[in-house]
Amino acid sequence: MKESWRWFGPNDPISLAEVRQTGATDIVTALHELPNGVLWEREAIAARRDLIAKAGLTWSVVESIPVHEKIKTAEPGWEELAETWGRSAQNLAREGVKTICYNFMPVLDWTRTDLTYPLEDGALALRFDYLLYVVFDLFILQRKGAEADYPADVVEKAEARFKTLSEDAIAKLISTVLAGLPGAEESYTLEDFRGQLARYDAIDAAALAEQLSRFLEIVVPMVEEAGGVMAIHPDDPPRPLFGLPRVVSSVEDMDRIAARVPSPANGFTFCTGSYGIRPENDLPAMLKKHGDRVHFLHLRATKREEDGMSFHEAPHLDGDVDMVAIVRAALEVEKARGVQLPFRPDHGHAILDDQSRKTNPGYPLIGRLRGLAEVRGIARALAEV
Amino acid sequence: MKESWRWFGPNDPISLAEVRQTGATDIVTALHELPNGVLWEREAIAARRDLIAKAGLTWSVVESIPVHEKIKTAEPGWEELAETWGRSAQNLAREGVKTICYNFMPVLDWTRTDLTYPLEDGALALRFDYLLYVVFDLFILQRKGAEADYPADVVEKAEARFKTLSEDAIAKLISTVLAGLPGAEESYTLEDFRGQLARYDAIDAAALAEQLSRFLEIVVPMVEEAGGVMAIHPDDPPRPLFGLPRVVSSVEDMDRIAARVPSPANGFTFCTGSYGIRPENDLPAMLKKHGDRVHFLHLRATKREEDGMSFHEAPHLDGDVDMVAIVRAALEVEKARGVQLPFRPDHGHAILDDQSRKTNPGYPLIGRLRGLAEVRGIARALAEV
Repeated sequence: MKESWRWFGPNDPISLAEVRQTGATDIVTALHELPNGVLWEREAIAARRDLIAKAGLTWSVVESIPVHEKIKTAEPGWEELAETWGRSAQNLAREGVKTICYNFMPVLDWTRTDLTYPLEDGALALRFDYLLYVVFDLFILQRKGAEADYPADVVEKAEARFKTLSEDAIAKLISTVLAGLPGAEESYTLEDFRGQLARYDAIDAAALAEQLSRFLEIVVPMVEEAGGVMAIHPDDPPRPLFGLPRVVSSVEDMDRIAARVPSPANGFTFCTGSYGIRPENDLPAMLKKHGDRVHFLHLRATKREEDGMSFHEAPHLDGDVDMVAIVRAALEVEKARGVQLPFRPDHGHAILDDQSRKTNPGYPLIGRLRGLAEVRGIARALAEV
Repeated sequence: MKESWRWFGPNDPISLAEVRQTGATDIVTALHELPNGVLWEREAIAARRDLIAKAGLTWSVVESIPVHEKIKTAEPGWEELAETWGRSAQNLAREGVKTICYNFMPVLDWTRTDLTYPLEDGALALRFDYLLYVVFDLFILQRKGAEADYPADVVEKAEARFKTLSEDAIAKLISTVLAGLPGAEESYTLEDFRGQLARYDAIDAAALAEQLSRFLEIVVPMVEEAGGVMAIHPDDPPRPLFGLPRVVSSVEDMDRIAARVPSPANGFTFCTGSYGIRPENDLPAMLKKHGDRVHFLHLRATKREEDGMSFHEAPHLDGDVDMVAIVRAALEVEKARGVQLPFRPDHGHAILDDQSRKTNPGYPLIGRLRGLAEVRGIARALAEV
């Protein structure tokens, strides 16, 4: 397994020199500075690749080339945007960045209700508190028709919870949920968010799945021709939210995606934290079933809470995810295919000096180093068994 | 395996709250504030234990009760000092700190020539540069008769090297070597050091080994009676230095110590970094051979350099020590005995924020966290095999 590390580019508060000291050898990054929808030129890609190489690291995975909302909603012009996406992916592959991670989540890249949830040991974790999410949906966002999505007792509990929230708590909740919008360093408002959601009013899961297939039919052959592979990231969390459809949440979703465009270049990012939220997802079995097209691993452990709907991010070895079984399955896949799969420690708690350094939510330095080192130990042990 | 962490007491720049965030559950510490040779009272032990418990951690190993030089040299009064040592150990065991780590190294607790040796990734490591050590011995310390200890070509090379050293480099080398004296926060001079060495002029390895046995014959029954176990730490490095005798460096040394006082309370701290310096030491075999009396593990990897005599401290999984084989052997020992062995990540590189925080040489926060997490991963993986 290749140890990789997500780096947010030259503006990342964590430097490449620091990444070296975690033991990681590979970098996962994107040209974050480019607006969604433009072509990634080979020169810009090569320059970033060389900057990374100069620090003694290898840019091996792009995460992500964003998929424009117009592609997901099939709005006019989407085919051209898909072509551009495919050409960017080709340029990356031709410059040596052959693994193309992306997602097909409507509107939000991820959703949490707390970015600094304190655990018993003082570590700060990301958390999704289901009731707070419902509070947000019903009483803050006031999404039309939202009440129909929840049982009456949940609505009642959410209303009671809403009444306990201070203005500060409400403001914090809004900024936390909106942080999951792509490019969230820009300032979004609730009104913007409502507008984004409205674009999906007429799109159900079947329609979105069909549109993903059309997108794949355009881009997979392009990427394949350039020697690259695609790796779709699952929904985070893998459940419908805000009435939005979800199409990459389960083994059935993986089956459907693989069947529609059989090329192994139509592959998966296996994110244990995301898939792991659904208790029915048998992660090692899913990884092995689609092992011929898993090209990238996000290793992270989530812990489901008592209500069955809330969760928080656990230390990498202590959540609901059996990390040893996952690494064992990944090593089997590697052996069968004769490849080395890149993985990255996905997320991490903010611990120790992390708590005084501003980094992207889920991406502190020392917490991720801890997760990386834990997985490294597992991989080293299983490689010798 | 129980994950432990060395903590230097309330003056340690690393707090117990920080230790919690490494995932460690157990603490290794001593009443560092007490002068060598005094009795450790139960009240002081209990107070320290309770302070640690309040932070959510367990004080399970004492490292070390220092063994007074008079005991090692058999100077008048040594038996009384040994009795006091035994009573301190009894007090610890009776207050719940049952594992007593100690060493029987003359004069120096450890020896290095560089405490901030920069590695290729920017990490800072401890290093023992053999030639610099010879320079120190011959041309700085000017130890009487030292020349006889080295081949002529080494003396010649050392002289050439000495001539290249600036005054600053010489001053740094002196403070680095003297840092290995116990209680080195006091300021030692070369003259003090010569005086310490002189006490061993008439003591060879056989005499020191015999004196260790006499010490054990006094204290092992005392410790055993109180329900504790002793765990002698090997020599660091495991070779004679400055003409001093060494008696805990090899499997033959372990055999002799175990044979002389057969009680399992007469046990070992298995330090992979120290024993690992000698290529002929087969570490997993040594650990298993004396598994019934290994009570504590120091897990660290050293890397021998080309000259065969120099070494530096490597990342925990990348040195000459096969850490997977060590953990496997330790788990076998645990299973056979039905116990959980405490280990600690011994030493670590100064990485990331470590480089701006003053900690004891070899004991940075993040570098040790990395080593702990790596070993945790190995242990987790092998526990499931």
